[in-house]
Amino acid sequence: MATELYDLTVPGFTRGLRALSAILDKAVAHAATTGVDADDWLSLRLIDDMNPLIKQVQTACDSPKLAVARLSGMAAPVHDDSEKTIADLQVRIADTLAYIRSVPRSAIDGQESKEVTLTFPGGEMKFLGQPYATGFAVPNFYFHLTTAYGLLRQAGVPLGKRDYMGTPG
Amino acid sequence: MATELYDLTVPGFTRGLRALSAILDKAVAHAATTGVDADDWLSLRLIDDMNPLIKQVQTACDSPKLAVARLSGMAAPVHDDSEKTIADLQVRIADTLAYIRSVPRSAIDGQESKEVTLTFPGGEMKFLGQPYATGFAVPNFYFHLTTAYGLLRQAGVPLGKRDYMGTPG
Repeated sequence: MATELYDLTVPGFTRGLRALSAILDKAVAHAATTGVDADDWLSLRLIDDMNPLIKQVQTACDSPKLAVARLSGMAAPVHDDSEKTIADLQVRIADTLAYIRSVPRSAIDGQESKEVTLTFPGGEMKFLGQPYATGFAVPNFYFHLTTAYGLLRQAGVPLGKRDYMGTPG
Repeated sequence: MATELYDLTVPGFTRGLRALSAILDKAVAHAATTGVDADDWLSLRLIDDMNPLIKQVQTACDSPKLAVARLSGMAAPVHDDSEKTIADLQVRIADTLAYIRSVPRSAIDGQESKEVTLTFPGGEMKFLGQPYATGFAVPNFYFHLTTAYGLLRQAGVPLGKRDYMGTPG
């Protein structure tokens, strides 16, 4: 009855990335009705020293991509953060989804005790696979998804909680 | 090796609620240095038709409280959203943590297939316990935690991602 590691990670990541893609589509559609260039919103920040929308979306892609790569050991595509437009970000989201979907359940299930080491400029953090997934990767992913949603909500894009929650699939 | 339902829910909820409490403490401390009344921030919103900070904190408490109650079947304390101050919200967070910690692991583990029905003004949603936990309760909790963080970050409170991530315990 307990839950396999794949089910703790991949379904939420794919649902959230699909939701993010749909949120960006809504932003483009809303901008078109108001005469704004939606790409101008990519530089929006909650405050000066916080990352802008474009980086929130890039990190919302990297967070699940790297989690799946670390847990499965299967090489992930490299993204160099060269995106400039929402159209570019949609390609990145699609590429991230394609990678995540390419990783078989068998490569993730059973990795609950795999050692995962994250390296930062200031040092490193060591986790086991399961606490890394539920205590780091998942909350980190939802942080960036929510912040991207909040920035576009603040810009006036007509979004609601359902857009954030998305739909399974 | 697979993960029990308790471990999918309670550790993240308790870590996040403790992080929220510490974030509010930082807000009060920062306000004191700048001559602002931190309680004035409770009415901040990202945009007019989105819930203010006070409601984000209340919902960040209700989301895990109700999830634990629905999964375990153990009655949760009732909160009537009568809080007016950050001090009041700290009481609510502490009360929520006390309830969540009072629920034994044995009441949650094994409830992966329990039917959970959420009732909304517009209808109802039915889930099984595990998809409810990972596909609804967890993302909903992090939405409100991140939005509370973002509102205080935007208000100038010196916060960083580590404040959001918190520490296990």
